[in-house]
Amino acid sequence: MREFYTDDKVHEECGVFGMYRLDGGNVSKDIYYGLEALQHRGQEAAGIAVKDTNGPKGNLMLTKNQGLVSEVFHQEDLDRLKGDIGVGHVRYSTTGESNAVNAQPMAMNYIKGTLAVVHNGNIVNSKELKDAQMHRGLAHYTTSDTEVLAYEIIGDRVDAPNIEEAIKKTASKLRGGFAVIAISPRKMVGIRDPFGIKPLMLGRRDDAYILASESAAIKSIGGEVIRDITPGEVVTITKEGISSDTSLCQKKRAHCIFEYIYFARNDSVMDGITVHDARMRAGKALARANQVDADIVVGVPDSGLAAAAGYAEESKIPFAIAFYKNSYIGRSFIKPTKEERNIAVQMKLSVLDYVVKDKKIVLIDDSIVRGTTMRKLIQMLKKAGAKEVHVRISSPPFLHPCYYGTDVPTASQLIASQHSTEEVCNDIGADSLAYLRIDDFKEMVGDLPLCSACFSGDYPV
Amino acid sequence: MREFYTDDKVHEECGVFGMYRLDGGNVSKDIYYGLEALQHRGQEAAGIAVKDTNGPKGNLMLTKNQGLVSEVFHQEDLDRLKGDIGVGHVRYSTTGESNAVNAQPMAMNYIKGTLAVVHNGNIVNSKELKDAQMHRGLAHYTTSDTEVLAYEIIGDRVDAPNIEEAIKKTASKLRGGFAVIAISPRKMVGIRDPFGIKPLMLGRRDDAYILASESAAIKSIGGEVIRDITPGEVVTITKEGISSDTSLCQKKRAHCIFEYIYFARNDSVMDGITVHDARMRAGKALARANQVDADIVVGVPDSGLAAAAGYAEESKIPFAIAFYKNSYIGRSFIKPTKEERNIAVQMKLSVLDYVVKDKKIVLIDDSIVRGTTMRKLIQMLKKAGAKEVHVRISSPPFLHPCYYGTDVPTASQLIASQHSTEEVCNDIGADSLAYLRIDDFKEMVGDLPLCSACFSGDYPV
Amino acid sequence: MREFYTDDKVHEECGVFGMYRLDGGNVSKDIYYGLEALQHRGQEAAGIAVKDTNGPKGNLMLTKNQGLVSEVFHQEDLDRLKGDIGVGHVRYSTTGESNAVNAQPMAMNYIKGTLAVVHNGNIVNSKELKDAQMHRGLAHYTTSDTEVLAYEIIGDRVDAPNIEEAIKKTASKLRGGFAVIAISPRKMVGIRDPFGIKPLMLGRRDDAYILASESAAIKSIGGEVIRDITPGEVVTITKEGISSDTSLCQKKRAHCIFEYIYFARNDSVMDGITVHDARMRAGKALARANQVDADIVVGVPDSGLAAAAGYAEESKIPFAIAFYKNSYIGRSFIKPTKEERNIAVQMKLSVLDYVVKDKKIVLIDDSIVRGTTMRKLIQMLKKAGAKEVHVRISSPPFLHPCYYGTDVPTASQLIASQHSTEEVCNDIGADSLAYLRIDDFKEMVGDLPLCSACFSGDYPV
Amino acid sequence: MREFYTDDKVHEECGVFGMYRLDGGNVSKDIYYGLEALQHRGQEAAGIAVKDTNGPKGNLMLTKNQGLVSEVFHQEDLDRLKGDIGVGHVRYSTTGESNAVNAQPMAMNYIKGTLAVVHNGNIVNSKELKDAQMHRGLAHYTTSDTEVLAYEIIGDRVDAPNIEEAIKKTASKLRGGFAVIAISPRKMVGIRDPFGIKPLMLGRRDDAYILASESAAIKSIGGEVIRDITPGEVVTITKEGISSDTSLCQKKRAHCIFEYIYFARNDSVMDGITVHDARMRAGKALARANQVDADIVVGVPDSGLAAAAGYAEESKIPFAIAFYKNSYIGRSFIKPTKEERNIAVQMKLSVLDYVVKDKKIVLIDDSIVRGTTMRKLIQMLKKAGAKEVHVRISSPPFLHPCYYGTDVPTASQLIASQHSTEEVCNDIGADSLAYLRIDDFKEMVGDLPLCSACFSGDYPV
Repeated sequence: MREFYTDDKVHEECGVFGMYRLDGGNVSKDIYYGLEALQHRGQEAAGIAVKDTNGPKGNLMLTKNQGLVSEVFHQEDLDRLKGDIGVGHVRYSTTGESNAVNAQPMAMNYIKGTLAVVHNGNIVNSKELKDAQMHRGLAHYTTSDTEVLAYEIIGDRVDAPNIEEAIKKTASKLRGGFAVIAISPRKMVGIRDPFGIKPLMLGRRDDAYILASESAAIKSIGGEVIRDITPGEVVTITKEGISSDTSLCQKKRAHCIFEYIYFARNDSVMDGITVHDARMRAGKALARANQVDADIVVGVPDSGLAAAAGYAEESKIPFAIAFYKNSYIGRSFIKPTKEERNIAVQMKLSVLDYVVKDKKIVLIDDSIVRGTTMRKLIQMLKKAGAKEVHVRISSPPFLHPCYYGTDVPTASQLIASQHSTEEVCNDIGADSLAYLRIDDFKEMVGDLPLCSACFSGDYPV
Repeated sequence: MREFYTDDKVHEECGVFGMYRLDGGNVSKDIYYGLEALQHRGQEAAGIAVKDTNGPKGNLMLTKNQGLVSEVFHQEDLDRLKGDIGVGHVRYSTTGESNAVNAQPMAMNYIKGTLAVVHNGNIVNSKELKDAQMHRGLAHYTTSDTEVLAYEIIGDRVDAPNIEEAIKKTASKLRGGFAVIAISPRKMVGIRDPFGIKPLMLGRRDDAYILASESAAIKSIGGEVIRDITPGEVVTITKEGISSDTSLCQKKRAHCIFEYIYFARNDSVMDGITVHDARMRAGKALARANQVDADIVVGVPDSGLAAAAGYAEESKIPFAIAFYKNSYIGRSFIKPTKEERNIAVQMKLSVLDYVVKDKKIVLIDDSIVRGTTMRKLIQMLKKAGAKEVHVRISSPPFLHPCYYGTDVPTASQLIASQHSTEEVCNDIGADSLAYLRIDDFKEMVGDLPLCSACFSGDYPV
Repeated sequence: MREFYTDDKVHEECGVFGMYRLDGGNVSKDIYYGLEALQHRGQEAAGIAVKDTNGPKGNLMLTKNQGLVSEVFHQEDLDRLKGDIGVGHVRYSTTGESNAVNAQPMAMNYIKGTLAVVHNGNIVNSKELKDAQMHRGLAHYTTSDTEVLAYEIIGDRVDAPNIEEAIKKTASKLRGGFAVIAISPRKMVGIRDPFGIKPLMLGRRDDAYILASESAAIKSIGGEVIRDITPGEVVTITKEGISSDTSLCQKKRAHCIFEYIYFARNDSVMDGITVHDARMRAGKALARANQVDADIVVGVPDSGLAAAAGYAEESKIPFAIAFYKNSYIGRSFIKPTKEERNIAVQMKLSVLDYVVKDKKIVLIDDSIVRGTTMRKLIQMLKKAGAKEVHVRISSPPFLHPCYYGTDVPTASQLIASQHSTEEVCNDIGADSLAYLRIDDFKEMVGDLPLCSACFSGDYPV
Repeated sequence: MREFYTDDKVHEECGVFGMYRLDGGNVSKDIYYGLEALQHRGQEAAGIAVKDTNGPKGNLMLTKNQGLVSEVFHQEDLDRLKGDIGVGHVRYSTTGESNAVNAQPMAMNYIKGTLAVVHNGNIVNSKELKDAQMHRGLAHYTTSDTEVLAYEIIGDRVDAPNIEEAIKKTASKLRGGFAVIAISPRKMVGIRDPFGIKPLMLGRRDDAYILASESAAIKSIGGEVIRDITPGEVVTITKEGISSDTSLCQKKRAHCIFEYIYFARNDSVMDGITVHDARMRAGKALARANQVDADIVVGVPDSGLAAAAGYAEESKIPFAIAFYKNSYIGRSFIKPTKEERNIAVQMKLSVLDYVVKDKKIVLIDDSIVRGTTMRKLIQMLKKAGAKEVHVRISSPPFLHPCYYGTDVPTASQLIASQHSTEEVCNDIGADSLAYLRIDDFKEMVGDLPLCSACFSGDYPV
């Protein structure tokens, strides 16, 4: 496996993409490009399963492996993956189990033919479901909760009239945040958890329906967004068209705030919120809350740039490009020594000395996890002659774990859960440090109901 | 995949090897060497699963892939495969489904931990069992009947007191020929079908027990053979030692005659019969049955050499080496044209002209399937100056399919099922042609009860 | 080979990096990181050659291949590359001959031991030199002019007192733009063409000397820049230290303007000019020359961002982020269809609709080559609701080929050489179009003597 | 690199194969099959260079790498290698320099176009030639004497009227044993050293001429042998046909005896001698010289089988197959431990116990180098119940190094050069030991003049 320059971020686990071309055309290339558009949600593994709905029940084709989308798929894979219905997945793995077999889609044969399932999120009660399955004499090949989910659907299908009812029955048993797309021999079904923790959108291009984690993926292949899937909704697409079952929908919603802070692409619109705009507004809120006498506003590329632009606009302090980012750095076959980890930041980001020399700087980023990167960047800015560095973070301090699929380090690694803001400020060498307040989320996303448990400890489920 | 020079043979599907070191030592290298010793039984895929019986229940390690044993396993695989109990498998695949996922061992997690299963043979009622499993809500990842077998064991384990009872219960439901080795978290269990169609032997080396398809594999790693597993016997090896359950054993036996004709290694002893000796005796029977005036006896390398030696000894006609075999030929990345298939034989085997010039030859091989190779060899001998070529085959004509795991071509491809012996003789260009008679099997293997359905159409199951 | 999303840019051919650790430490990892810092100068092939100056004369180690630096080198390569002196190279190939053997360093054995050479640039009279070499009975393995250069040095070494004199003699015969680093068994020698067309800098870190195409590469490994190599200067580094021979230096200089427009990293300082500052000043010059009534200034990521920032500062029109760049897109194993080439831009860059809707936009990029990308971006902006798009280009129109190592398409592909500015404006769908004027270079880089032949047709050599 | 089961043999270094199709057809597949037929002469690297004689001068295509012929070449290589003239090579490497760059063919551009050279043998004065080349300002990429040879031809071509004269001039300067095939843009030239130490044959198939190390290779692709190249002869094949220059031929000949003892294929005829027949006659000579009271004659597979057959025929003691050879063993990615090296023999060869039990055995092999394998085989036979094992070796004891391209271990590793025959007999555990005598070569090969320096110390050059 290739991995080197660890960023100091929390991570999304997955992105999902499904497509059904009612005109019978091949979906594999569009899914490929759709997954490339979702690559930011997971870089460890990728996979595509497609099926020809006019072919025999068992003719599902699957390719999945560890690596980027562009590494996993070669021309011959796409040539082989022939079908008018299909699902794809990109995965970020949180554990040591980052092997090819745990990659998605999960695909298997069951009594009605083939089933392929992709899933973004985390099933909180997955262990209980798995134990019950095992007591029924089932075997598991993976440690993935997507396999548990797929087996549950298959079990529920025995007595259900169709796959969408089976999925609904399964969904009613799941606790957690999830967005799932499944293809049976003739249907594509999508479901989103009742709180709407994980995103899922419906789109269309010509005669094809698309389900995807983000609007940007739908647009990247030339499609148009129809709408967000309603939390709890089961959407079923067949040759005859689309139908919807909202009987699992509930009033309470809790959309993951981290999609707006960091996960989603800047150009996505999610549950009605323009992501880039939300980030700029977070920057504006920071500027209003904490005035500082400074010469330039600098965003950490790329995650801090939108909030920095908002901060600059609100504060009237000029926005400046002060870092060069080497976009070739990121993945390598070289095992880093401790020293090299230490200089990893400076290989990826370097300071434009003449921009920062003798300047008082507001430095914006979207989050601080361990603090390692921020500490290094401040060192680099000071070495280049910056007079002051005032750090503003466009999210509150991380204090709590996430149970819904985001990879937050354990509390002992979270600098904010171990130290006061003043201590963190000293530790990273900043001249001042301020975070966005939980109350400021209103300014970011208006009345959108949120899950912000990682900041507040208040879990929706 | 690499494949070029198709031989004109029937094929065994698999070889199995299991080892349990009671002293806690690592078994992976011994299994590797044991599989190399069984490579003749299957060259398409290989795999090893091992477990540390003192470790947690789920720590099974598995490597399997398409290719020869020496191609599938690299040093880092064996370094990684750490355990005191393990099973290995070599596979010859008969169908288009020759992919890595269908390779064995099959390994999965079930309620009691991990299970790894290897299997040589064919389960005749596998489809019915699979359908029943699917009706219970199970899913299948592969098209292999070994997965069906494993799921059946796992299902039976729910109510059984231990793994050996579950395996016995499963075995009682199976119809066909099979030799199975399974490892659960702490035990190795072997079972052989009640007719003994497929071979399985028990061996020992120091503190370790070994189960293997052939005695030669046990000896190749320095072990000694204890005995053949009795048909129907369930052998269970634990830290405490070995135990045996013979309640499924029956009187009727039907050992596969093809093990003695072709499959087994010359140096194996199987169900009491010395294989090389059986082949020599087949040659002697041929010599007695069909006298021919000839100058030399020539065996087709390597399959006809033992029978040729027997023929020569009995007939007093001198044994001669008349072919050079290029042992580097066999696997290639080059797709052969029709023309090249035609010359494949002459690239692999060439004639020592001076040996055969002006000679009357008895040419011995163990079987004729399509006749393509034999026709070419006779052409080559005649071109080199042979006066006469009298073909003697140390098995009867193939007429019927095998349902127990041997890959016999369809009747339309079997030259003997389409043509009379005289027609075949003309077709291949021989001066005379004679086969071993079914009655001669007595001379080969004495009173050993046989399955010779492929010759007689008389199926034991 | 992997290549898909063709950008519409001219390309540099190479970057070079050399290091000599006088303390005897290993240079291979530093060269690796140095090459990563130069990866923007060439992405097709990479290589490193190192030597232990205390070892025997012939113990040079070499790894080179096609691919990015991070793809070519695995841990075991760096473990193997042991030496205190070494050179590295990244290459962009302009022709079909983009194979591994043409990659650099070129390394060979000659009468004094091993020689490894890396070269950025183009030798105009390379064919004449090669012909003369062949008439002397020499053979060539490659079609690279670096091999010609190396053979010339080796030939001149026969009568020269040392390697530096041989290199000087060779250099006196070369016509063109070149920056060369060579390592003999005990010395590192650098030379830059007398006009200074190609860049080369000297740096230091602790006891080590560094030669590199750009200052950013020296700094990325923690080194400090000493100075630019004087055009025509031969720098020789031995265990005793550094010496310089300036006898080939001339008065006339002609630094490549494209280093400042596009090639060099934003954070480099080259021949006394801060690159990012030069780009901002080009944007300011554009703003002064062509006033336009607009709401926002938008730079095309990443090449137009610096000039856009300058334009915004000068014009007081707000700088806006209007594109999202998918940084995972760029290299793939998928062969694009015509359609996919067409949508390649929109997969890499997408518009933040809400930013541009109803806006009058100044769109800044550094160059227009074929016009394909710009046409697409304007379409995307207009589709997203932009009212007007005024294109400003921070370089003059391309009209002439480059003979010194930059890959400019043929005139027939250069949109500016085929059409008037007005025609180009219409063709790309802009509301107005203006270029930087050649006279504006003074504002960018002051009195620095330039080669701007690709714009003016006035060639220095 | 994959290597495990070291045999205890001396090794040939190379096999060469060239083909010129006057009808313009493609030669690459025939060369591929020709190299497979010569694979026994070298298993470490393989290569093919081809040229279209109607194409431009520089369009030579080359593929070479480490590995077996079937591993080096994939279908796409052969598809790419298009030409009507070509040469191929298989290589066994004696030193640490077994890398891809040292593989053959050596191919380069010189003043007349492309040259590709393959070479079997050893140039004794290669170092002197190389030094002189370097003093002329030449550079070497490899440590191979084939590169020296190629450069010498290229240098001589400057003043020679054509390539065949240049090759003749070069050949006149060479000392050692060599068989060389070269292709220039329009001609194929072969030359054999004046003593005929190394073999080279001329063949024909339809409109094509073939040069190859052995007759078996010519026949394997359906060609017929015309004749051996006369030692010292330069054969030139052009579109107009074949011509010969014998001006370098001499009276004295010295054919390598080891071709007849071990190197050549059993089915080859070389310099008029039928190889298999020579080996049988060696066995007969052994039988006549040393009578022994025994029950069976056993040859060590495969090298001792022909001599064993001869011994059996002469002595009237029955020939028996007593070993099973596992032909899948030989190359692996597993690093053997000391223990495993020890059991390597028993994994490759196993004893048919019932054949040897209570028998007095004459055991025949072609040579003893270190004695390790023979010691192990005798142990195995005795363990299986053999009463006596009388070893007969169909060559004299090795005492001297070879300077002409055969890889003989140093004297300290040669058991015969360190110990008396009696000591060796005891050491390997034999009941008696006898070698072929140098005088017996007359019986093997008649009056053929030989180089048997490795036995006698009497070197021809």
